[in-house]
Amino acid sequence: MLGRNRRLAILAEASFTPRDAKTAVGVLRYRAPDVVAVLDSTRAGRTAQQCAGVGGDVPVVSRVVEAAALGADTLMIGIAPQGGGLPDAWRSAISDALGRGWDVLSGLHVFLGDDPEFASAARRSGAKIHDVRRPPASRPVGSAAAGALESLVVLTVGSDCNVGKMTTAIEIHRELLRRSIRSRFVATGQTGIFIADHGAAVDAVPSDFVAGITESLVLEAARGDGEPVEVVMVEGQGSLHHPGYSGVTLGLLHGACPACLVLCHEPTRDRMRLGSSNHGPSIPSLRELAAAYRAAASWVRPASVIGVALNTMAMDAEAARAACEAARAELEVPATDPVRFGAEPLARAVEERRSVRSAATAAETRRFTER
Amino acid sequence: MLGRNRRLAILAEASFTPRDAKTAVGVLRYRAPDVVAVLDSTRAGRTAQQCAGVGGDVPVVSRVVEAAALGADTLMIGIAPQGGGLPDAWRSAISDALGRGWDVLSGLHVFLGDDPEFASAARRSGAKIHDVRRPPASRPVGSAAAGALESLVVLTVGSDCNVGKMTTAIEIHRELLRRSIRSRFVATGQTGIFIADHGAAVDAVPSDFVAGITESLVLEAARGDGEPVEVVMVEGQGSLHHPGYSGVTLGLLHGACPACLVLCHEPTRDRMRLGSSNHGPSIPSLRELAAAYRAAASWVRPASVIGVALNTMAMDAEAARAACEAARAELEVPATDPVRFGAEPLARAVEERRSVRSAATAAETRRFTER
Repeated sequence: MLGRNRRLAILAEASFTPRDAKTAVGVLRYRAPDVVAVLDSTRAGRTAQQCAGVGGDVPVVSRVVEAAALGADTLMIGIAPQGGGLPDAWRSAISDALGRGWDVLSGLHVFLGDDPEFASAARRSGAKIHDVRRPPASRPVGSAAAGALESLVVLTVGSDCNVGKMTTAIEIHRELLRRSIRSRFVATGQTGIFIADHGAAVDAVPSDFVAGITESLVLEAARGDGEPVEVVMVEGQGSLHHPGYSGVTLGLLHGACPACLVLCHEPTRDRMRLGSSNHGPSIPSLRELAAAYRAAASWVRPASVIGVALNTMAMDAEAARAACEAARAELEVPATDPVRFGAEPLARAVEERRSVRSAATAAETRRFTER
Repeated sequence: MLGRNRRLAILAEASFTPRDAKTAVGVLRYRAPDVVAVLDSTRAGRTAQQCAGVGGDVPVVSRVVEAAALGADTLMIGIAPQGGGLPDAWRSAISDALGRGWDVLSGLHVFLGDDPEFASAARRSGAKIHDVRRPPASRPVGSAAAGALESLVVLTVGSDCNVGKMTTAIEIHRELLRRSIRSRFVATGQTGIFIADHGAAVDAVPSDFVAGITESLVLEAARGDGEPVEVVMVEGQGSLHHPGYSGVTLGLLHGACPACLVLCHEPTRDRMRLGSSNHGPSIPSLRELAAAYRAAASWVRPASVIGVALNTMAMDAEAARAACEAARAELEVPATDPVRFGAEPLARAVEERRSVRSAATAAETRRFTER
């Protein structure tokens, strides 16, 4: 991960739950063999599985010294708090890790490498600080170039933050690979970058360049290694209806220029999350959400909603199945919880669209470039 | 301007036209008494009025030394190129100015203060470098709080970049002041900041915080000095249909939570500007534009389009009047060129809406906060 094999201790002090430690949970889900411990003194003695439902027997410990005894050599910041600041309580763990010569991986909006105390601790011990949210130096302006790709671009979009857009994109990508379809995953947030070892945290990019950076990532992914890929699965961000993050969502949508959208939702949530509150604006119906995303896409490059991905973690199996069936009936597209029930229905929808597209590409591209 | 009275030399080398030197033109239009010269060796000997249609007798000269002879004491960068970089040809003028102890005001995406050569020249001479596009240190997340203000928030929106959103907002604001309505102008781009001496360049803000920074500016403006203002006129950015900048536009729209929108357009332009090309995607009809802005606003806080502002600089008077009449007929709202024909019809539309709102505020606010 980020340049070499690592044995990670993930810092999630007082926060190791699926809701508050999104980055820890994502990395445990997809890179568990790289993780030796999670740091949360309020949950020490339990396993990752018990706290967060992922990560199996990875132990939760209190202090950096215990993670060191388990062989850790890198500290990863495992939360992404709204606003992106650094809780004071975490400073000592970071200083301790840097003092031991551990690299520190962070996806916070605040850059640890710019903190004089951390920077000098890293210099003294030879440790590296990787601030993956630091924007790329390039300043490309989006030009809708991804809209003319032969590769099928698929973007996950959502009803709110933290409803499963990254997980859904990765699950569909993996299912496509299993079906021998040449697919690439494009990470657009810090957790995705840790998992994929590549990408850009578009929410930290100066807003003029969100679409341009996204476009660059999609064009690069589409080129593949020699052989162009068939599908580019792009991780979405935020929501068009979120009062804080809608601009990130639209910049990403217009930069990626997807032909297909997969709508992600958490069925037990009826209001958006705003700050530490669960009481933000109400979430519109799936039908309204789909209409808004189609409209917004059409301003630059039309897209269809080809499936729904539900995060049913908070529901029992029967309610989860009923929610999928209701979503399918409401939008008349496949609906599943890709973690609980598998991503196959969504991967099949992508595959079908891919076949149609192969035939239609020439005509579509001509129409598109004529706009 | 920015801390003290200044005598500006505006750098617009090889670019002093309304199209390429937007910042120079805006500052000349509203702060001409502060400007002693424009630097453009390709147009030296002419007046600002001859080159850009604004600025009267302000002379165009070739070199910093000539501007110094005219009494200049500050260099302002007068262009805002797409991508925001610094043309190499301009470096010597900036170094020359800093060497003389002049402050340098810049709205480029690239920060002059971070350039080692400029920083050390400034240190040596005691000059200050003001990079007004450097984002505020605060990281607020938008929460739609501006949607519940008693003040009427009005945002200018547009069919493309550089169609008159800033100018229209300022012209309406000034007309409101003439009509004794307590109005504040909120600058969201570098030219507006130079003119108003306050604001934030939202296109340079990390995208997660565009709505939040805008919200802070609007709430601050609404408070006024003791007495709350009646109207907050917010400068819009970009366009919902622009493949590069739409995310800035939506973040700003949802941060400002306007009740009223004024749609800005340049009638002779049928394609958006993309890079140095005039051949971007086609511009939709005014009706489609208005529908898109209303839809996007409604995702967070519904807004009406209450007027159209046309930039008719490229048209003769008869064609300009016909274009205004056509726009009025198409959207059934007042339409004018606020520079050519005055902003009165738009200010009146704001005033009428203000009266309606005074009566309706209690009910509207209740509905809004219940969402």
